[in-house]
Amino acid sequence: MDQSNKLSRRVLMSRAAALPALAAGATSAAAFEPPSVPPWTTQQGGPFLNPPYGLPSPHEKGVVRVLPAGNNPFPTATRTPLHKLHGIITPNGLFFERHHAGVPAIDPAQHRLMVHGLVDRPLVLTMDDIVRFPSVSQIHFLECSGNSAAQYVNTSGKTAQQIHGLLSCAEWTGVKLSTVLAEVGVRPEGKWILAEGADGAAMTRSIPMALALEEGILAYAQNGEMLRPEQGYPLRLFLPGIEGNMSIKWLRRLKVGDAPFHTREETSKYTDLLPDGRSSQFTFLMDVKSVILTPSGGERLTPGRFTEISGLAWTGRGRIKAVDVSVDGGRSWQTATLQTPVLSKALTRFRLPWRWDGRPLVLQSRAIDEDGYVQPTHRQLVAARGTQYFYHYNAIQSWGVAANGEVSNVQV
Amino acid sequence: MDQSNKLSRRVLMSRAAALPALAAGATSAAAFEPPSVPPWTTQQGGPFLNPPYGLPSPHEKGVVRVLPAGNNPFPTATRTPLHKLHGIITPNGLFFERHHAGVPAIDPAQHRLMVHGLVDRPLVLTMDDIVRFPSVSQIHFLECSGNSAAQYVNTSGKTAQQIHGLLSCAEWTGVKLSTVLAEVGVRPEGKWILAEGADGAAMTRSIPMALALEEGILAYAQNGEMLRPEQGYPLRLFLPGIEGNMSIKWLRRLKVGDAPFHTREETSKYTDLLPDGRSSQFTFLMDVKSVILTPSGGERLTPGRFTEISGLAWTGRGRIKAVDVSVDGGRSWQTATLQTPVLSKALTRFRLPWRWDGRPLVLQSRAIDEDGYVQPTHRQLVAARGTQYFYHYNAIQSWGVAANGEVSNVQV
Repeated sequence: MDQSNKLSRRVLMSRAAALPALAAGATSAAAFEPPSVPPWTTQQGGPFLNPPYGLPSPHEKGVVRVLPAGNNPFPTATRTPLHKLHGIITPNGLFFERHHAGVPAIDPAQHRLMVHGLVDRPLVLTMDDIVRFPSVSQIHFLECSGNSAAQYVNTSGKTAQQIHGLLSCAEWTGVKLSTVLAEVGVRPEGKWILAEGADGAAMTRSIPMALALEEGILAYAQNGEMLRPEQGYPLRLFLPGIEGNMSIKWLRRLKVGDAPFHTREETSKYTDLLPDGRSSQFTFLMDVKSVILTPSGGERLTPGRFTEISGLAWTGRGRIKAVDVSVDGGRSWQTATLQTPVLSKALTRFRLPWRWDGRPLVLQSRAIDEDGYVQPTHRQLVAARGTQYFYHYNAIQSWGVAANGEVSNVQV
Repeated sequence: MDQSNKLSRRVLMSRAAALPALAAGATSAAAFEPPSVPPWTTQQGGPFLNPPYGLPSPHEKGVVRVLPAGNNPFPTATRTPLHKLHGIITPNGLFFERHHAGVPAIDPAQHRLMVHGLVDRPLVLTMDDIVRFPSVSQIHFLECSGNSAAQYVNTSGKTAQQIHGLLSCAEWTGVKLSTVLAEVGVRPEGKWILAEGADGAAMTRSIPMALALEEGILAYAQNGEMLRPEQGYPLRLFLPGIEGNMSIKWLRRLKVGDAPFHTREETSKYTDLLPDGRSSQFTFLMDVKSVILTPSGGERLTPGRFTEISGLAWTGRGRIKAVDVSVDGGRSWQTATLQTPVLSKALTRFRLPWRWDGRPLVLQSRAIDEDGYVQPTHRQLVAARGTQYFYHYNAIQSWGVAANGEVSNVQV
């Protein structure tokens, strides 16, 4: 591969590379001409909104959640437009959705959380009770365990949103689950918790007590305001770093037991089918993963133009330690800059300056977490799991850049 | 003051205090009865939204920005409902607004940023040019310098929103101003920058070159998505820690000069009138400040109930070092817990457990920043500045709790 195609911090140091705007054909000094005064500067602007809750510009109407591809008459998920977003926070209006029976319209005054089972003092709590407990706020990602699943068998997804959009990140506020469990007094034999939603599916999962005590949050707010209806309003469980379906939305019940409850959603669903026909159950953790979002599938690059390679990395094990980027299909790697602060179990933005020289190539990112886990290649992942495995796809994403500049989803 | 009224971490350690829910009258073990199954659990929930951009629950319709009190037919600001929010991120729909000529409806394809004056290579940049530059994302507060101004002379504001609501916090993404200034080549005599908005007011301020180079950002995104129209869509200046009006919205022009430009907004407005009749000009920095939000003005406390005292602290100088809380009008203080990570020039959430014993008292919070600046009392601030001073009010907020539990805005 030509040396000029390699990534280097020097590209930003050189005069040519320090002029992305000029390189893009912006007005040069010789041709400098001030723009005319636009109409919005010569007249009074619009009044305050009523109701006084803001919305994006009409010019951003293409930045929305999308349904899955196909003609499913009963879609159950929408995906976040990751490739059109910035930083690490996902705005609430674009946070991905996954429902098992639609979005219930819950009256928070009527909502109750029952905590019972192997406890000394079973409780029924109102939302007023819950918000008065000591609270915490933490920024964490949430990812559906089925995110990117089609990648096991094909490259049908076109954009990062279509392939990886069951992923978002927010600041969550709520009560530590350990606080409420101390309140009810868990008996020594209480080792698992059943969490049940108040939706029409009564979505239910079993949670090991240690996991619940360590990091579980009864979350009622997201990015500063109360949860949106599609995120579990008025109350959800939130388990940082754990597959999304375990963070039961519209939470109405916690039952302490001495064993897992083997609900439908952890027997027929959310298990991992192995090559030998057996299944792994209770595979909660979301492994280290990353994806380049700029540039990504569906874009078209212009040769010679400066491009900042940018993407997101995350791991259920804690902090991202490093992200490497390759522009030659994994033969050589350069270390990207991580946006600080790097937070535990949160999306981490990485960036690397680059200029495409016009030749076909493959872009990849490879994340490493603080436990030393390294994101595998597609081949490594499939060799280990087979193609019957559906959940927890976390292989390196390859974006092919064709001679005409088109960026597409490929596997190498 | 009775010892039981003092703040102590022990309140959370004691059995009685660890039962806020029971204390509030939630169902006790003796009376435990499971709640009936609500209607939303027995039926299919609602479909996905169309357009697929989410909104808060209809039950949260009271959590909105408010106009200032009074009958001004041309209001120019809305205030964030700080006392109804959680954590540190302000959702974009509730971020405070301050306009000088309403909200312009800008077509981003038509928008231009001109950078000229004492530079080697004047430029006109499109939004496409700007978003291709290397970018940064940082979480910072933004506060109007006129926030809390009425407190200099009276206690007319009732709620934290009415008094202090010209304050919000978001993750901002954009291009470092230093990157674009390197692009145009600032001449040695270039010491100030004029920033001009594309709104009908052509809002204009002068910025010292050192300040612009050190921290200035050309911001195009907020909390992950493109700026909202009322926040400067498609481009604003953002100066962390600096009074809000300097972060020019709808940014269309940067002109480098050798001296300040003395625009209307820095001569007749945004100057600080001193007791001797002179004015301080170019007082940019937002000083260390804090406010308790739970409980706060307009609430009514119940004696004996557990309450988590919670609020926000911030400083234009960098990080908050500590927040002290007093429940006896400033005679004694206890150190609150700070939500981590504590970020530079960002809102910092503080929390302290408490139980009101039913006697009248005054609640206060006092922030200290990493430079050692301590938030002053109201008396100290007025003694130093007089009551003609309008901007930069950062004195300790006192909330009186009456015998009947009513919380109100007082000065002690």
